[in-house]
Amino acid sequence: MPKVPVKVVKWDEIVSWARRLAENIRSSGWSPDVVVAIARGGYVPARLLCDFLGVQDLLSVQVVHWPGAAQVAEKAYVKYGLSVDLSGKNVLVMDDIVDTGDSVVLAKEVVERCCRPKSVKTAALQVITSTTKFVPDYYAVEVRDWYWYQYPWTALEDMSSFIVRMLREEKQQLWTLDRLMEKFVEWYGNELLEERFLYFREALERLKRDGVLKPMDCGGQTCYKYGQ
Amino acid sequence: MPKVPVKVVKWDEIVSWARRLAENIRSSGWSPDVVVAIARGGYVPARLLCDFLGVQDLLSVQVVHWPGAAQVAEKAYVKYGLSVDLSGKNVLVMDDIVDTGDSVVLAKEVVERCCRPKSVKTAALQVITSTTKFVPDYYAVEVRDWYWYQYPWTALEDMSSFIVRMLREEKQQLWTLDRLMEKFVEWYGNELLEERFLYFREALERLKRDGVLKPMDCGGQTCYKYGQ
Repeated sequence: MPKVPVKVVKWDEIVSWARRLAENIRSSGWSPDVVVAIARGGYVPARLLCDFLGVQDLLSVQVVHWPGAAQVAEKAYVKYGLSVDLSGKNVLVMDDIVDTGDSVVLAKEVVERCCRPKSVKTAALQVITSTTKFVPDYYAVEVRDWYWYQYPWTALEDMSSFIVRMLREEKQQLWTLDRLMEKFVEWYGNELLEERFLYFREALERLKRDGVLKPMDCGGQTCYKYGQ
Repeated sequence: MPKVPVKVVKWDEIVSWARRLAENIRSSGWSPDVVVAIARGGYVPARLLCDFLGVQDLLSVQVVHWPGAAQVAEKAYVKYGLSVDLSGKNVLVMDDIVDTGDSVVLAKEVVERCCRPKSVKTAALQVITSTTKFVPDYYAVEVRDWYWYQYPWTALEDMSSFIVRMLREEKQQLWTLDRLMEKFVEWYGNELLEERFLYFREALERLKRDGVLKPMDCGGQTCYKYGQ
């Protein structure tokens, strides 16, 4: 078992989840006039949903998570809000995955306060029901066991963070590429490396550019030095 | 040759174009602090670009095209603008495809006026250089011959519009499914029907729901009546 269980989500799954979500919404009898994507995760699902439901109006708010001063808990706050008139309109607030519910709750409040909508409902492709405090009105997939769902629009960022987290926790300074890949599979499983290998290489490039990894010569072969 | 030449764009192509665009931007020496997606087309490309360039801030403006009163020309206007402070920031305005340049030019003006950015540049996955009046600062693919590029996030809307346009121009009231498909291939080519067949069926469902097509019995087999 890898230390961090990862599921790689393919584009086809994204599309079929968005299609299913649209069917759920349509069959509920309520229909949105406007979709508000939660940046950044909700952008792709929101756009697909607009297509499936024939919604023309697409806006966004950005909610970010910032560690509190004492690192006690991640706190969600609104980085970019909205100031438009949505009076008389049914608004759907959309995210990719709901794991705590904080972002969706906050984004819903923003829309209710800013824009005088007729009604606001919330949706996500996936909901982790074992961890969330808030279940959105609509979703396509209920997740019971926690996995890191690796969406295609956050592949490079996830890959880079995954590598950094592993390097930080492993007590080792010098890494050959072989050893990096081997350890990566121990941490995150085979599937991620196989399905996103191009991103793995790009993430290494990024970490080199950012000075996190320094290429060195280790007795004739290239290796990477992590840390100072 | 189909009447309307269509190219179906796959997700893999989208990703590799976004990756190439990110490389173009990186190698130019300029780097965005904020990405502004043009709704709705720019949403998916903008999100992918944020991943490839490590940009955290993602916003959007919505530009729509509306036929002028006399149907003389389509006119682009801003449906949802922005009012945030982007002072000191480099902003990239992002769309999927540029064919006239109107949307990108307008969105760029919005950002310059609303938000006091340090600089604003424009980008698209594709640019049709034979038709556009404006070439964005960055793009991944130059298109010389006009095609309808059928992106995956607008598949159902395109499919529905394509069917309606065909029905409107063909002088025929009753359609069997066979005949509809045959005529569709004449108009738009094989590839679209094959690659997006699920959407073709969904578009027929949508047109039935909207009363554009009425299912009837035609001597034992189902056919569709178009018009009043």
